[in-house]
Amino acid sequence: MAEQVVGPQNVAQKLISSHLVSGEMTPGSEIGLKIDQTLTQDATGTMVMLELEALGLDRIQTQLSAQYVDHNLLQTDEKNPEDHLFLRSAAQRFGLWFSKPGNGVSHPVHQARFGVPGTTMIGSDSHTPAAGAIGMLSIGVGGLEVAMAMAGDPLYIQMPEIWGVELTGELPPWVSAKDVILEMLRRHDVKGGVGRIVEYYGPGLANLTAMDRHVIANMGAELGATTTVFPGDEAVREFLTSQDRAGDFVEILADEGATYDVTESIDMSTLEPLIAKPSSPGNVVPVREVAGEEVFQIVVGSSANPGLRDFAVVAEILEGKQTHDQVSVDINPTSREIFEDLAKGGWLFKLISSGARIHQAGCMGCIGMGQAPAIGRNSLRTVPRNFPGRSGTDEDAVWLCSPETAAAAALTGVITDPRDLDMDYPRPSLPKQASVNTAMLLPPLPAEEAAKVELVKGGNIKSLPDFDPLPDDLEVPVMLKVGDNMSTDGIMPAGSRVLPYRSNIPKISEFVYIQVDDTYAKRAAAEDGGHAIIAGENYGQGSSREHAVLAPRYLGLRVVVTKSFARIHWQNLANFGVLALEFANPSDYDSIEQGDTVKLTGIPEQLKAGNKVMATLAGREVELRHRLSPRQVEMVIAGGRIPQRRQSLAG
Amino acid sequence: MAEQVVGPQNVAQKLISSHLVSGEMTPGSEIGLKIDQTLTQDATGTMVMLELEALGLDRIQTQLSAQYVDHNLLQTDEKNPEDHLFLRSAAQRFGLWFSKPGNGVSHPVHQARFGVPGTTMIGSDSHTPAAGAIGMLSIGVGGLEVAMAMAGDPLYIQMPEIWGVELTGELPPWVSAKDVILEMLRRHDVKGGVGRIVEYYGPGLANLTAMDRHVIANMGAELGATTTVFPGDEAVREFLTSQDRAGDFVEILADEGATYDVTESIDMSTLEPLIAKPSSPGNVVPVREVAGEEVFQIVVGSSANPGLRDFAVVAEILEGKQTHDQVSVDINPTSREIFEDLAKGGWLFKLISSGARIHQAGCMGCIGMGQAPAIGRNSLRTVPRNFPGRSGTDEDAVWLCSPETAAAAALTGVITDPRDLDMDYPRPSLPKQASVNTAMLLPPLPAEEAAKVELVKGGNIKSLPDFDPLPDDLEVPVMLKVGDNMSTDGIMPAGSRVLPYRSNIPKISEFVYIQVDDTYAKRAAAEDGGHAIIAGENYGQGSSREHAVLAPRYLGLRVVVTKSFARIHWQNLANFGVLALEFANPSDYDSIEQGDTVKLTGIPEQLKAGNKVMATLAGREVELRHRLSPRQVEMVIAGGRIPQRRQSLAG
Repeated sequence: MAEQVVGPQNVAQKLISSHLVSGEMTPGSEIGLKIDQTLTQDATGTMVMLELEALGLDRIQTQLSAQYVDHNLLQTDEKNPEDHLFLRSAAQRFGLWFSKPGNGVSHPVHQARFGVPGTTMIGSDSHTPAAGAIGMLSIGVGGLEVAMAMAGDPLYIQMPEIWGVELTGELPPWVSAKDVILEMLRRHDVKGGVGRIVEYYGPGLANLTAMDRHVIANMGAELGATTTVFPGDEAVREFLTSQDRAGDFVEILADEGATYDVTESIDMSTLEPLIAKPSSPGNVVPVREVAGEEVFQIVVGSSANPGLRDFAVVAEILEGKQTHDQVSVDINPTSREIFEDLAKGGWLFKLISSGARIHQAGCMGCIGMGQAPAIGRNSLRTVPRNFPGRSGTDEDAVWLCSPETAAAAALTGVITDPRDLDMDYPRPSLPKQASVNTAMLLPPLPAEEAAKVELVKGGNIKSLPDFDPLPDDLEVPVMLKVGDNMSTDGIMPAGSRVLPYRSNIPKISEFVYIQVDDTYAKRAAAEDGGHAIIAGENYGQGSSREHAVLAPRYLGLRVVVTKSFARIHWQNLANFGVLALEFANPSDYDSIEQGDTVKLTGIPEQLKAGNKVMATLAGREVELRHRLSPRQVEMVIAGGRIPQRRQSLAG
Repeated sequence: MAEQVVGPQNVAQKLISSHLVSGEMTPGSEIGLKIDQTLTQDATGTMVMLELEALGLDRIQTQLSAQYVDHNLLQTDEKNPEDHLFLRSAAQRFGLWFSKPGNGVSHPVHQARFGVPGTTMIGSDSHTPAAGAIGMLSIGVGGLEVAMAMAGDPLYIQMPEIWGVELTGELPPWVSAKDVILEMLRRHDVKGGVGRIVEYYGPGLANLTAMDRHVIANMGAELGATTTVFPGDEAVREFLTSQDRAGDFVEILADEGATYDVTESIDMSTLEPLIAKPSSPGNVVPVREVAGEEVFQIVVGSSANPGLRDFAVVAEILEGKQTHDQVSVDINPTSREIFEDLAKGGWLFKLISSGARIHQAGCMGCIGMGQAPAIGRNSLRTVPRNFPGRSGTDEDAVWLCSPETAAAAALTGVITDPRDLDMDYPRPSLPKQASVNTAMLLPPLPAEEAAKVELVKGGNIKSLPDFDPLPDDLEVPVMLKVGDNMSTDGIMPAGSRVLPYRSNIPKISEFVYIQVDDTYAKRAAAEDGGHAIIAGENYGQGSSREHAVLAPRYLGLRVVVTKSFARIHWQNLANFGVLALEFANPSDYDSIEQGDTVKLTGIPEQLKAGNKVMATLAGREVELRHRLSPRQVEMVIAGGRIPQRRQSLAG
């Protein structure tokens, strides 16, 4: 460990410096971090488990990794239950905890059962930062990064700026933690946190429980922040104690005199109920400004408002009344344990009696798994995101608000400032001791037993194909030439025809480029010696999906030559061993066409020698460039991160 | 009313004779029955409401009609919530009760809130016979029949045989009502009840509650019976009293000396836990014969085991234990009121604590709306049906059993005779007074207010097209000629590409015959003067879907000439004004081809004069036959049942 002592530190700096394995803590420079824990959910987890299999990993190297099933719970055909069985077997094989379908949403369950202040975590889910609520450094990343962390690799990121947000004052009645993060979004919109870690500090913290902080940390993802951290203080001790885990408490506080790269302040006593209008979490206005708009649905739950309090306050607002007859009130308990406490405390009865539809514990409507609204009919939700179509309905009208604001609309049928309800603000009396029930959380098997576990692969789950190293010399045909701004949706379409094959690279590869040239996949598969693609500017923009590299790589793609690449796709190409090259002179794009030949010789030497790569395109000598770091050069030559790491794991 | 006095009557005869408007009560002859109540659910109800609109109905003529939303609750896009809004508006427009999504499954809710012994009901759901549990004559029929009943028409059926089943003895521990109906299915398989009403009588009745009887009556549908009836006796009085409806009780008992067309007897004390193996409700064996088979899922709920007891007994079996880690335990409360009682009685807490996934009140997994199992992995369910693929998984392995048997497997992970559990049989102590909560059940609007309601039609809901009367003379081209055994799946495919247009005839018509001749729909639509279809034997076999007539009729189909018709499709053709004719000499089928002309003159006179119809096919005089009753002749000439009835409603 290259721990750096730099005078008084804030919480984020302490978390980083205690896990630093490479680099310097200067904003913008690359650092490597040791990762203690990982979290995967089912939607991204099947591919992560296939990556572990492809790596040849025997047992995870992290302190603790947990595989959750919270996204694909609806089971309208065999694919989801078969994913669940596969994930269970993979968790057992590789040494992870397995959280059964119905046990709840990864973030609150992980915080309650496994979270430890002072540790690091990455997760293949963008709301992984929620664990910052209890003093963890917890970051959402792509699936392969998580697989590599389980294999023992550090996480490489650019050192973020630390953005200190001082909280003062106490929230007034009818205003809750959700309004704090909505205030941040009102001020800074959805890109205000890019390249930053948000660290909350100050006297107002004493008025926020660990679950209140979870709300704020979770939805820090909507600010675009790398993550959010809170200190490991008394509120965290209290939380862990309530979860029977007082022994796991570690105090982690900012040092006296700690500073931040950027600072700002929120006086919580001045906040009022806020709401994000359709269709961005940054469209925040005071609820009173939009009061009176008709409402057809409210949805309570998700990792953005997961706590017992968040449901209990809704139950107490609705208690003894009936929800408006036009409104569907959908309640998604976030975990089995919270569901138990809702039943035990009588809140569940109140919710059912007042007309709520109670759903199984999980993400549900938050990620468009059921509960889609009618077109243009306002749906008020306590979830973190309202991007268009995320609800399942393309032309939806989803608003984001606190449980209090949602409950008010449930009663009146219109958007209502909850302060205008003619009642006292309920402050639910929560049990000191939460229900702790781990029976749906299967522990890792002992190593000897784990080694015997066979992966249970339904018909729709296929191992990752083997990818061979990059040859020293390549002479391959241009299988396709495309123009500027080709998106990953163009390369690898999503949609109901294709997505079912998410865990089956051979099958999904049949759909590569199908909307651009439906002969590409067949032609590519028929060419034994590999092939090249030529493209214009900004190749691979849009979604980060790894399938847009994995599937054409499976079909034999070895090299892509473009005018320029989109950042994430470029990284994915390197991760999976496809050589990404740019024309030194963009006009050379015009001198090569589909069917022409791309010829490269002495590739490893050329890549290692510098950024210039000479190639013969359609018989003509052309200068190309690469932007790979030395680490990435090794990876590409090895055929990608998995074959490279498999070699070292075996060796 | 043509009430017939025929000596001592059984309960079924009393129900029929008190509602008889035409015909004689001789098994096999057509009778007309006055219908007091109707029930529609959402999957079939949208088309029924569109039929009411097409009829020009102002207000329903039944004593009571209720529209439920219990099938399509998952809302993965806007279509289901928009159906819900449409159904709500239609219920308000036409004077129906509207049961909101989340209020529960139609059958138990209807029995609890609206069922009245001695009345008749039809419903557009095959499990409508469940209401026979409380002495109603309750029959499942097609959507148009329900629409016509709401318009005030009688139901015409063939008088069934009455099958008296004497119950004696008391069920032993661990054996419950489900095992009684499974015993009937073991003895008689899925066609044993065809053409019959099953009437239970005898001293054993005293040991069955109204909800036990609901289990038996509901699943009488699986015997193929027209319906099932129980007497309106003390158990029914007790049930209605528990529902705050003692005033609605009407005693209806078999007369002393009443007889049955067929009889049989079940000594309940000799029964043991039974189970129907995949994939038919008739594959019944004792549980002990299949004990030990691995189980991956149990599903508790549905109209086949809807009562509070059915859930409470599961909760008490699971209490204080954990369900097997390989098993997903899915609980579908059947109604909001039962959900309330489960919460109030502490059973919900027990279920959650022991590892159950709790779902919203509704049909859910029973009709493949979520909870699909993995391929070939055993799923034990308390639902009424296990036909292949009904679960959502084509190659499923669904077993039907009692709540007790399901709960035993939840604990052990294998099929287990519940008598082998090492515990006393729990007999849950149920509240005398059920929770009564009608706030999700919107009452009909007063007529004046109802008249002002506009139907709320989402983009996917279109009014039924107008259909004109059959012309006196027709000269139309043969648009398509098909062979023998053309199914309604061939005519109007189902599947995820087509089904979303279930409430949009213009759109769904684009898919007619798409797998047989994908030019048909376009060619037919381009032909202004209508067209004919020629077919071989058994035309229109398979599914009863009305769309297989409505959609080609929309495209201009006026006459179908075949060697023979399947029964239900033939009735549907008449209902929607398409002339169905058969070759008097089947070999004439060979003398006409696609593109030839079908010419008919003086059609009304020919139809009324008898069964012979002379036509000119491809220029040649050919003798055809029709099998329409005089009532049906009038209907076809008018353009179908809707235009005909619209004339009389207007007149």
